[in-house]
Amino acid sequence: MPEVTSEPSLDVVGVGNSIVDVIVMVDDSFIETHGLAKGAMTLIDAERATSLYAAMPPALEVSGGSAANTVAGVASLGGSAAYIGKVRNDQLGEVFAHDLRAAGVGFDVPLARGGPPTGRCLIAVTPDAERTMNTFLGMSTLLAPADVDAELVVSAAITYCEGYLWDIDIAKAAIRRTMDLAADAGRLVSLTLSDSLCVGRHRHEWLNLISDMVDLVFANETEICSLFETEDFDSAAARAADITEIVALTRSAEGSVVVSGDERVEVPAVHVPRIVDATGAGDLYASGFLFGLARGADLRRCAELGGIAAAEIISHVGARPQVSLSSLA
Amino acid sequence: MPEVTSEPSLDVVGVGNSIVDVIVMVDDSFIETHGLAKGAMTLIDAERATSLYAAMPPALEVSGGSAANTVAGVASLGGSAAYIGKVRNDQLGEVFAHDLRAAGVGFDVPLARGGPPTGRCLIAVTPDAERTMNTFLGMSTLLAPADVDAELVVSAAITYCEGYLWDIDIAKAAIRRTMDLAADAGRLVSLTLSDSLCVGRHRHEWLNLISDMVDLVFANETEICSLFETEDFDSAAARAADITEIVALTRSAEGSVVVSGDERVEVPAVHVPRIVDATGAGDLYASGFLFGLARGADLRRCAELGGIAAAEIISHVGARPQVSLSSLA
Repeated sequence: MPEVTSEPSLDVVGVGNSIVDVIVMVDDSFIETHGLAKGAMTLIDAERATSLYAAMPPALEVSGGSAANTVAGVASLGGSAAYIGKVRNDQLGEVFAHDLRAAGVGFDVPLARGGPPTGRCLIAVTPDAERTMNTFLGMSTLLAPADVDAELVVSAAITYCEGYLWDIDIAKAAIRRTMDLAADAGRLVSLTLSDSLCVGRHRHEWLNLISDMVDLVFANETEICSLFETEDFDSAAARAADITEIVALTRSAEGSVVVSGDERVEVPAVHVPRIVDATGAGDLYASGFLFGLARGADLRRCAELGGIAAAEIISHVGARPQVSLSSLA
Repeated sequence: MPEVTSEPSLDVVGVGNSIVDVIVMVDDSFIETHGLAKGAMTLIDAERATSLYAAMPPALEVSGGSAANTVAGVASLGGSAAYIGKVRNDQLGEVFAHDLRAAGVGFDVPLARGGPPTGRCLIAVTPDAERTMNTFLGMSTLLAPADVDAELVVSAAITYCEGYLWDIDIAKAAIRRTMDLAADAGRLVSLTLSDSLCVGRHRHEWLNLISDMVDLVFANETEICSLFETEDFDSAAARAADITEIVALTRSAEGSVVVSGDERVEVPAVHVPRIVDATGAGDLYASGFLFGLARGADLRRCAELGGIAAAEIISHVGARPQVSLSSLA
């Protein structure tokens, strides 16, 4: 980690795809009938979004987006957070901007006055609480380096980037610019691997990116194993720790494992009476971890905070906290 | 009731304000700070909608509209239902149309290609599960007699109109046309009084309307008492039964009372482990009652079905059923 140049004024700045979630509860037969990749995130175009939406039961809409969920969680924990991402000046864009600002997150990227509509994610939640995501990125495909406010990035103790952005070349450039700015200012750079299919698409670039630029990696078991093309979790965790400072790995019901150099911390999952919707579990784990880290907590406490935030989010529909997380931490 | 001219092909057609609900959970202090009329429905203009929304915490969006909720409930019970109402061809309008059609409700009014945006209702739910509604009607203010499909109205066993529509002159004309069409075809005409403030605004017109045109009136205790300017529920119920065929009255935790001529039926409320959000309780009571009536059930069974549907809706956030009501009935 390079040296810190001045005191940060913000805990976390997140960069991600800006999405409104359209959530339906379905049986597994819906997943099969429509050929959806259960548990994964699949990118879809406008036409597919229209036809899939038409086939879906009545839905509810709630703001989402992986990094946006994470910074909303940081704010809910009492941290200071900001967000960089792109929506249109349409109704869903206004919903997205409202929900983020109302959560206490700074969001100053102007709503685009032209271009594709605000992105949305059609999420099918099955009775096992697993979520299957189909994302129409819309305006998010136009997130560009010019949207990245250098002063904002430099002001944050930790920069948090979403792996999902790597699917779009211009967004990839925005991430590179963000990471460069943060690293040059001596800030911590973190990345979530987002999705195992996404890891498969970008494995080699990401291995280089992590080695060169990233201080802290978030992933679940499948993602970290996919990154190193192994089925052995412990080996994947150890190899990740060889190329970055901190690796924070979630394992669903088995809690999380954090590896940093020679240190290895295991934290059990927080018991949830009924898991309703797994959407956002990883995003909110990152919220707790990042908040802890920005406030100087040790790795165990960071992982515990992650577990607490994740437990709240999976106990209800939607990936934004419904209670103040600071009251649970 | 006039004579039936031919067999209806539909159970219920509803006419109402077409609204997407924007729901937030707040403390009572929010209601006080913003001077909201707790438990009531207040009409607001675009400017107030913007400023109130900006002050609201993160929200979730779900289709609403009183009569639209009711017909969605009829469909969920296994009935056949259609809806007449007006939205724009904007994102919220598409959400509204999707959710209604996906619920199995026929909705063929074209989405308007110009004019004000789709209506929305900013709903603040307090810890006591009471909902306080602030409605920006938007495109709903343009619901006109020309939007009423005569063939559709005549095809339905029961026409269900929302008292809320009476606040707008052109919508009032649409309701009068709907009721005329239904009555001329020998169909049942029903009306919900919607809101006690709304009753206060239209008391004298409604007393005449009910006497002249309406076969079945839905109201809660406050509304029926307001209609007759009395505090005596039993007297209000009796007076209502003097001017219409059937009066179906909801009394929250005390269940419902149905009066028709000399017949009086009392049905206790269905026990709900935790009442989360009262939004839609009256709308869904009407769903159950109308479905029963259309299918030839006696008044007690109609009231029971109403209670079952209402119990489902108050056990979660939002005024559209989250499970198939037919599985509960």
